[in-house]
Amino acid sequence: MNAEIIAIGNEILSGSVVNTNAAFLSQELSKSGFHIVRHSVIPDENELLEKGLSEALARSQLVVCTGGLGPTCDDTTKSVVAKMFDSALVTNLEILKDLELRFGNRLVSIEDQALVPIKAHLLPNSIGTAYGLVFSKDDSLLVLLPGVPYEMKKMVEEQVIPFLQKSFKNKSICRQDLYFFNTYESKIDPYLRELQTIYPAVKIGIYPSPGYLSVSLSITASSEKEGTDILNEAAAKLKAKFLDHYIYLPFSKIEIALQNHLVAHKKTLSLAESCTGGRIASRLTLQKGCSDYFLGSIVSYSNFTKENILKVNPATLQTYGAVSRETVEEMAEGVLKITGSDYSLAVTGIAGPTGGTPEKPVGTVWFAISSKTKATQSWKMQSGGLREFIIEKSANILLFSFLRYLQEEENLGG
Amino acid sequence: MNAEIIAIGNEILSGSVVNTNAAFLSQELSKSGFHIVRHSVIPDENELLEKGLSEALARSQLVVCTGGLGPTCDDTTKSVVAKMFDSALVTNLEILKDLELRFGNRLVSIEDQALVPIKAHLLPNSIGTAYGLVFSKDDSLLVLLPGVPYEMKKMVEEQVIPFLQKSFKNKSICRQDLYFFNTYESKIDPYLRELQTIYPAVKIGIYPSPGYLSVSLSITASSEKEGTDILNEAAAKLKAKFLDHYIYLPFSKIEIALQNHLVAHKKTLSLAESCTGGRIASRLTLQKGCSDYFLGSIVSYSNFTKENILKVNPATLQTYGAVSRETVEEMAEGVLKITGSDYSLAVTGIAGPTGGTPEKPVGTVWFAISSKTKATQSWKMQSGGLREFIIEKSANILLFSFLRYLQEEENLGG
Repeated sequence: MNAEIIAIGNEILSGSVVNTNAAFLSQELSKSGFHIVRHSVIPDENELLEKGLSEALARSQLVVCTGGLGPTCDDTTKSVVAKMFDSALVTNLEILKDLELRFGNRLVSIEDQALVPIKAHLLPNSIGTAYGLVFSKDDSLLVLLPGVPYEMKKMVEEQVIPFLQKSFKNKSICRQDLYFFNTYESKIDPYLRELQTIYPAVKIGIYPSPGYLSVSLSITASSEKEGTDILNEAAAKLKAKFLDHYIYLPFSKIEIALQNHLVAHKKTLSLAESCTGGRIASRLTLQKGCSDYFLGSIVSYSNFTKENILKVNPATLQTYGAVSRETVEEMAEGVLKITGSDYSLAVTGIAGPTGGTPEKPVGTVWFAISSKTKATQSWKMQSGGLREFIIEKSANILLFSFLRYLQEEENLGG
Repeated sequence: MNAEIIAIGNEILSGSVVNTNAAFLSQELSKSGFHIVRHSVIPDENELLEKGLSEALARSQLVVCTGGLGPTCDDTTKSVVAKMFDSALVTNLEILKDLELRFGNRLVSIEDQALVPIKAHLLPNSIGTAYGLVFSKDDSLLVLLPGVPYEMKKMVEEQVIPFLQKSFKNKSICRQDLYFFNTYESKIDPYLRELQTIYPAVKIGIYPSPGYLSVSLSITASSEKEGTDILNEAAAKLKAKFLDHYIYLPFSKIEIALQNHLVAHKKTLSLAESCTGGRIASRLTLQKGCSDYFLGSIVSYSNFTKENILKVNPATLQTYGAVSRETVEEMAEGVLKITGSDYSLAVTGIAGPTGGTPEKPVGTVWFAISSKTKATQSWKMQSGGLREFIIEKSANILLFSFLRYLQEEENLGG
């Protein structure tokens, strides 16, 4: 079934805002079995808006729009679609009551926001003021959602996907998401083609993070008994084939999985970062509640700070260099001791573009995991690419490796 | 003059890659006087590709496309446009020579990449293998560029913009970019409207970073004597009106401006970060060459690390709390002493969503700048919003304030 995604908004057309909503919607709709044939961004102008929406509805069975429902431009979008679907605009008393309850007198535009096309199916917005609207015409559906990413995402997950699954009944599917790290799309893709010939009824979506060494797969089949059986079979084959790369990631985000694990086990973590320059700490601390397990990071961008704060032996730096197994292990053990954390992670490498040598070219990165109860583990990655890729890859490798380390420890009853 | 931006590529439609190219192109084309009326993403499929390109050329005088020129799908895009513009594909011997010289035998697809439509004007690609192509038909131009962001950006800045300025001759303009920090679009916009009535010949583009407290303006006028005079007048008025927020930012990126200043003055910097969690260090270290001035950051996410690494007095934490003028000053002075840097920056605050109190609500952030030669300066910001906004705002405020501190020091001969 073909679907299109439209964003309405001059702030995207002017380049002030990057259209990240489209990528999120593409992934969610693809996972639910839709084939995305176009993304568009169109301005908040009546004529262009109507033209853009009509063209899309003529091409595709599902059109999902974000933006243009806020109190500053609601009249435009709502009146345009009301006209298109030949629907009167009426004040919805339930919306009025809901918004007054949540926003009181703070909001001058409550009355505007409660004015909705009578033919629209409404999708409540529990965070913001703009309700979502769904229109149907012939065999096509038009879904209008607010443009604020966290309002939109919550509505998509909780309301839009279940609504679409009900509307397009023949599409009832079951789904599994699988995560692989330290690998590339090109390494997994040939096996997917093989699997596809064995299980033609299984649909496979591959979502690589190019350059960042992680790939997520979403595999779906019909939700009948036969479908779920072959889905489980296919998933088991995929896990077995790429066992070294497979990771169980229940909340799809490595930072959340680590935080949940460490908090549940009442353990703490500290970091010693050289080439990642604070990127790992920054990613971990974006998650609310991180202070329950994260004690801090020492970003040591000079030998002086490695020696004086992390207490790396000057002789180690002298003999083996800042990018070496010996240094990364002393960094991990140093920060573990200084902060008193249960675990520590360390990374040191050459992110480039300068600083490489024939023995240690740009992209050489050493990692270590240290703990209060076990010997320090360390290993090396040799990669290429731009500075920002080397930094992000290094952060991913270390976080994924640490999650797997914790999961293995748990499986061993550690 | 109307312009559209198209990205060709299934990886964007599947949601694997966010279309950041469109935002970059929108800004660059807007600054050159084009009015962006649509963004689209279309798949690598002949029929849909031709339809999408034809529709855009019928609507707009300029269509800029990215992607679809790589060695894996070049035949598709090139043959589609060659057919559209009724042009034969021929092997260009100069391209062949250039690619062999740069990539040698490494590249199996050199011959494919040297095959180009004979009617296209060519734009050389000094980094990658895909040359840019320009077609003209009636009064419209179609520009095809590679999709790899750093190749595309270099070609746009060095070749596409000058080419467009020559092609649309009546558009010869002069331009000034102005940067303001610690402010919002809504505070600047009313004055822009006023200015617009005084100088109707000046075009003003406003590019806010919503939530991040910085706004950039691009003002343009005709490049004749009269135009440059009124442009300078308008720029002077804008700077004077928002003097507290104006910052001279020669390379448009705060991280680069700071690095250039510190390296030129042979000074070093260290950080003590609490609520920003390594975000400032991470931003500074994304720039190549940062190790010439950046010594490191201590990300202290617990009182224990503040006391034991940064040497904040336990009595200070006890009496005033972790989020206070006293603590932030001791953090800055502590890291300055430990690392021996010339300057240090410190930040501590409540990023939320929990941890706020009536006296210190979520969004309370303290900042400090310390130096070897002057008394420590500290100040407070009270903001609202989501955790990620508070973190990014705090990073921006501190970096912009530090650049201004350095510029004032230099002006005083410090």
